[in-house]
Formats: sequence, structure tokens, C-alpha cells
Amino acid sequence: MLVFSSMSGTNILQPRMTLARLTTQKERMGHCTKVPRNVNMEKLQYGYLFPEIERHELLHTEKYPNAKLIDLGVGDTTEPLPSVITSSMIDFVHGLSTTEGYKGYGPEQGNKALRKAIAEGFYKNLNVKPKEVFVSDGAQCDISRLQLLLGSNVKIAVQDPSFPAYIDSSVIIGQAGDFIANAEKYRSIEYMKCSPQNDFFPDLLSTKRVDVIFFCSPNNPTGHAATRKQLQQLVDFAKKKGSIIIFDSAYATYITDDSPRSIFEIPGAREVAIEISSFSKFAGFTGVRLGWTVVPDELLYSDGFPVVNDFNRIMCTCFNGASNISQAGGLACLSPEGFEAVHSRVDYYMENAGILFETLASLGLKVYGGANAPYVWVHFPGSQSWNVFTEILEKTHIITVPGSGFGPGGEEYIRISAFGPRESIIEASIRLKSFFS
Amino acid sequence: MLVFSSMSGTNILQPRMTLARLTTQKERMGHCTKVPRNVNMEKLQYGYLFPEIERHELLHTEKYPNAKLIDLGVGDTTEPLPSVITSSMIDFVHGLSTTEGYKGYGPEQGNKALRKAIAEGFYKNLNVKPKEVFVSDGAQCDISRLQLLLGSNVKIAVQDPSFPAYIDSSVIIGQAGDFIANAEKYRSIEYMKCSPQNDFFPDLLSTKRVDVIFFCSPNNPTGHAATRKQLQQLVDFAKKKGSIIIFDSAYATYITDDSPRSIFEIPGAREVAIEISSFSKFAGFTGVRLGWTVVPDELLYSDGFPVVNDFNRIMCTCFNGASNISQAGGLACLSPEGFEAVHSRVDYYMENAGILFETLASLGLKVYGGANAPYVWVHFPGSQSWNVFTEILEKTHIITVPGSGFGPGGEEYIRISAFGPRESIIEASIRLKSFFS
Repeated sequence: MLVFSSMSGTNILQPRMTLARLTTQKERMGHCTKVPRNVNMEKLQYGYLFPEIERHELLHTEKYPNAKLIDLGVGDTTEPLPSVITSSMIDFVHGLSTTEGYKGYGPEQGNKALRKAIAEGFYKNLNVKPKEVFVSDGAQCDISRLQLLLGSNVKIAVQDPSFPAYIDSSVIIGQAGDFIANAEKYRSIEYMKCSPQNDFFPDLLSTKRVDVIFFCSPNNPTGHAATRKQLQQLVDFAKKKGSIIIFDSAYATYITDDSPRSIFEIPGAREVAIEISSFSKFAGFTGVRLGWTVVPDELLYSDGFPVVNDFNRIMCTCFNGASNISQAGGLACLSPEGFEAVHSRVDYYMENAGILFETLASLGLKVYGGANAPYVWVHFPGSQSWNVFTEILEKTHIITVPGSGFGPGGEEYIRISAFGPRESIIEASIRLKSFFS
Repeated sequence: MLVFSSMSGTNILQPRMTLARLTTQKERMGHCTKVPRNVNMEKLQYGYLFPEIERHELLHTEKYPNAKLIDLGVGDTTEPLPSVITSSMIDFVHGLSTTEGYKGYGPEQGNKALRKAIAEGFYKNLNVKPKEVFVSDGAQCDISRLQLLLGSNVKIAVQDPSFPAYIDSSVIIGQAGDFIANAEKYRSIEYMKCSPQNDFFPDLLSTKRVDVIFFCSPNNPTGHAATRKQLQQLVDFAKKKGSIIIFDSAYATYITDDSPRSIFEIPGAREVAIEISSFSKFAGFTGVRLGWTVVPDELLYSDGFPVVNDFNRIMCTCFNGASNISQAGGLACLSPEGFEAVHSRVDYYMENAGILFETLASLGLKVYGGANAPYVWVHFPGSQSWNVFTEILEKTHIITVPGSGFGPGGEEYIRISAFGPRESIIEASIRLKSFFS
């Protein structure tokens, strides 16, 4: 097996180089305002991960204009929307050109019918009320709105590795403290290591008490779906410590075994958890933009004030409703016919995941995920993940994501996305086989 | 003329009553987390204005189920979209159901073609580059993202009265300081009084230096469009004081005289201003959700760092792009045919504004706005605006907005929106005439 650690890792440092250019820019440009740069923004390291990956993709395309690039990076859906979904949106848009069908502002919290359909479609028998469901333009946007809700005076924990928006939004709101360069960590954030050694579930006995625990299952990037027992431990831990769990279930529909699809399947969760989720991966709505957040009535701050009241205020002030066209599409996804059609796409991507998993496992690599999530997570012991990323891109023209982009716990790993047309997945498998054998 | 000041103003206090209910809720409910409620959220007064108005509307409808309510409150567009716009969106949505036409994530900053069309359509000869244009899901959402960009360590000024999202988002991010109840003001916010006495333009000589000046023209709620001379004074003031102007031009297309439609028409503005704007009122996209923000390259923090770099990071981290369907619609609005069709709607609403203005002026009321904006702003000297609002609603079944909802400088005023079908505007005029004469 190849080891990549001897290669240079300069790519990751490129964003820092712009600072030198900026100094000369200041000299050249004359007027500076007297407004101080936000110290939180200064603390952010590099650019946001996915635009950084795109930058590498662009550079690669310039270097190899004739190469047939396969993008298994960002994790973007590729398959057409079922026509049962698009025809609902078309009907709605057509209505907008008529006196009877025109609609302006909807409720900031989402249209009533959609809130009800989400409560019934995803939380059947789980006692989630429509008014606890807040429709949004996506889970990533909701993460930042939740940070606005919480403010700078709370301490957070994240799985390590994890989706980078949790940490980056925490830095922006001012919770994170200084960046400790040699540890690749922020001082005030609690990193809960998740690796094959602990079955990708944090050691809660050694986890410090925090206010808010971000937890993603099925996990992005590791692909691990937490078991019922693990999630019960998490809920019990949060209750004991007085913490709030922000549970990200954006990949819940990719679960194939009996792992919980919602934190609210766990007894006691309504007193300790918020759930964020999305139509992006469930229904191929990455560009349509639709998501939701559930805040249960029973979730209370230390003074007894309901969190849901403040979240409602945030949604009314900092947001103005998801596009009513996207909401019409979302409603169609939750009709019996729509739900079935959308699930066939999920099955398709999961078959892709199976192909990629088998390919890499057959090469003797240590592969995780792929069974309950559209990501496979590959371990390269002793190698730097940015080097693995660069070498794979250079030699196979396949975009992946370096694991360290998801936190220090992702070092030595890369994430490979199963989103793509089948022929690309097969072609990628052939190239990976040829590269690694 | 009627005077309303003797009536009770208890309606506005209702949101506070829920606090008593919450205490009992805490006793009843058992588990509280140990997470402190965000002190900034505690500082917010009442609910966000427009949902409060809707609450009054609901109560009124329950009380008078047979009354034909006319809503001239929130300011929501009512006229169908031109079919040249909807057919573009329909084509795009249909494409999403095909292999060739499917699109997933777009750039977080907006699609290239739309950024270019906005730069060329709204900023012709003003040197705004497409990469300085950030497409979003609306101006209200961008206000909060700009507050995330700026952080808690800056001081802001607002026109008084002004659109409430500036102040509320400032409170949420932690810039505002304590609320001084008897002044109806936050301690750390600079309120720049705008009234007929100063031609709705702040007295800059008595305005304290702040980091950020929110300025809306044509103004919501007063309907006043600042003149070129006034805006030059504002830009000069900002440059001298080292401040940043956040210029809200959401109603720019409603200008009928030669008032500037963009702050970038003013020499020097590129070094001191950000502009936020929207397709909501321009194109009837209140429910479709589309807006944009321009951050010029020359705008620098005190350390010389370009503001645009940090705003780009915010858009990539806290946002994930506007719906690509809405963006397809936005692009259609900026085609020659689309632009003309959209403008015919603007003209229609402005004819409504003229009817309302004439009606109220003919009754001897002091009326402002209506010439460059779809709002008329009516003065009731000596009366409390919530009382005027309540009395008009009770006697004419017309929803307006109490001026004090826009800040203490709006006390004694109400805002009447000109958005509505023509027959509703004429009917409202008849009712108002009958009530006031």
C-alpha cells in the first residue's frame, strides 16, 4: 500500500499567503475606515473547506484541461428530480402568474401544510408538533441561526471529525477561543474523538461538560450511524450535564439498518435536543434549498425560558421564510408517490456507496461508512490527508475530501462521496483500483 | 381631525404578559438545561414588528369574521408575476427533472450570470464588478449576515424611524446595550431622527461617530428618497469619521424623480459603503426569496483588510446559495422584456400610492412619502400610533402599521402600504374618507 507522508503539504497553506498581498493592498489603496475587523473573523483558519476544495479542482482543471475529472468531493446530488416533484413546483410557479395563485410572503416559520407534513412524515408517533418544526433554506444556514440564538457565552462540543460548519460558525459567533496551531484545535471547543477505536462514538466519561453538543448521525464524514444504545447514552449524558444536543440528521434517510433516524426516537430527547435536517440529500434539493429544524416545547434554558420562543424570534428577525417554490417541492416529496420516488434516488446513491466500499476494501484499504450513509471514509495510516487528496487528484483525476478538513481527528483519512452517476462511480472504481494496486 | 391619544395602548404590552405564564411553565415542566439564555435575546423588546401586526390581524378576524379586511400593513406584493418571469422558472424546474438540466449546489455567492446581470442592470457605469455582488435569499437575511460579519464590538446608527430588522439584529448580535424603557431606545445605538423638520435627513453635525450607519433610501417607513446632495453629505460624513454605510436600496426601483437609486452613484461611496437590495418589491419576489449585497473591493477595515474577503467567508459558511430556481427567475427579471414587465407592476403600485396620498391629503392630514416609494406616512400630532392603528382597524377594517414600531421617531405616525389590488386601494380610500371626514 502507498504511503503519502513524504509529500509536501503546501496546498493547505496557500490561503495564508494572501495576507502578505493584503498589506501591500493597504499601502496602495488609500482610505481605510476606522471600523475594526471582527476579531472572530480573524480567528478563522483558511477558507471554508468546500470552496477550498473547489479551488483545487479549478487549478487541476487548468493544469489538465483534457482530463476527465470525477468529482467525489463536496457531496453534491447528481440525479434528476422525480417529475412528481418538479411538476408540483411547476404548478406552483405557474400559479404565481395568476391572480388566484399568486403568493407573497409566507410565514417565516414555513407554510403550515409543510410543517405538518414534516412532523407526520419524519416524526410519526414521536410527538413532534407542526409548530415545533421550522422550515428553512437548509441545515447549514440553520446552524448559523442556532449560533445566533445561543450567542457567544456558551461552550460547544463537536465530534472530531465533523462537518466544518459547526466549528466555523462557533468561531464566527465568538465561542471558540484562540486557535492552537500545533493541535489544530480551538481552545474553548471540546473535540470528541470518533474513530474505529471507539466505534465512532465519543468516550463520554472523558468528555468535559459543555452547553451544546453538536452530533451528526449518520455522521458526515465518517458515515457512521450511531446505534440506539449510543444515542441513549448521549441523551442521558446531556440530561445529567444540563446540555443541549444539536442533532444533525441530514443523512437520516440513508440509514439501511435499525439505527435511529431521529434523536426524538430516544426517550428523554425532547428535554435536551434540537434536530436539524434537510431536503438536500434526502430529495436532491441541494440547489433548490430546503431544510428544517425541530425545537421541542420541553427544551428550556436554565431560567426555564423555552428555547423555542427565542428560536421563533430568530427565524422572524434573521430569516424571512424559505422560497415558497421550494416549499411546494418539499410538500410533494412528502406525498406517498413523491416519497417513493425520492427514496429510489437514495437507493441509487447507496448502491454507489456499496460499489466504492467494495472496491476500496478489496484493495486491502481500511474502509468505513458506506452502509448507512453516502460516504466512505478511508484510512491511510501514517499519511497526511491533504497529501493523499493531492496524490489521488494528480494521478486519478478524482476529487475527494481530505479528512483533516473535518478536524484533527480526520487526519490520515479521506472522504469519498457516493453521489454521482453510476458510470462515474464505476470509472472512479477502475481508476482507484489501478492506482492502489 | 380626530385625536387618538386618550385611548388605551395596552395592545403593545401583550407580549410581555407571556413572561408570567413562563414562570409557571418552569415549575410545571421539570427538567431545565443548565444552558443560560442568551442575554442579547433577553434584551429584545416585544416580538418582531410584522408578526405582531399579523397577530392583531388574526384577533381582529376572530372578532369580526364577516368584515372585509384590507391589509395595507406588512407591505406584501399582491400582483401576479409576469409570465416572462414564471416561464423562465418553469423551464428551469423542468430541467431539474432531466439529466442535462439537473443542477445541485451553485456557488454560495450566486450564479455567475446573475451576478453579472445585477452588476450590469443596476450599476451600469458605476464600476460595480460581478464578483462584488453576492446573491442571497433577501435583504432582511443579509442584514443579519452583515451583523455576523461585523460582530458585537461595533457601534451602529440608524435612521429613526427605520426598518426594525437593523435594530433587532443589532440587539441579537450584542451591539445595542441596554434598553432604556422611557426613551424606547437602546443605550449604545445612535438614533438619527428623520422627520419633516429636517427633510427626513439626519442632522449629521449632531450625530455621534459610529462604526456603521444603516441608511435606507427610499426610506421604509417614511417613503422619503434622499437627494443626491444629502447622500453626498452622508458619504463625506462616513469618510471623515471612518464609518461604513450599509445602504438599503430595496425600494430603489420605485423612485420617480432623479434621486440616486444606488449609493454608488455618489463619488467616494466605494470606499465607505455596502449596498443591500432585493427582488422582493422590485419584482414581486417576496415569497420567491431573492436579494443581493454589494461589497466593493475598496472598502477596508482599519487594518487594511478588505471587508469583501470576510463577507465572502460569511456567505460560504453561514449561507449556501439562494435557490437556483429563484435565481433563474431573477435572471429573467433582468432581461429587457422581463425588466419592462416588472416595471409595469412597480408603476401600478405607485399609482396606488398616488391614490392613497391624494385621499389622505384631501382630508387635511399631514401626509408624506408616496412619490418615490410605495408607502405613505401619515402624521397624527398628539396621538399614539398604536392607538391610531387600533382605531383605524376597529372602525375601517384596514390594517396599517403603527409608526412607533419603526422606532421612537415614528410615534404619532402610521405607515400605509400601497401594495394591493386596485379595487382594495379604492375601497380603502372610501373607508378612510368616511372615517376621517
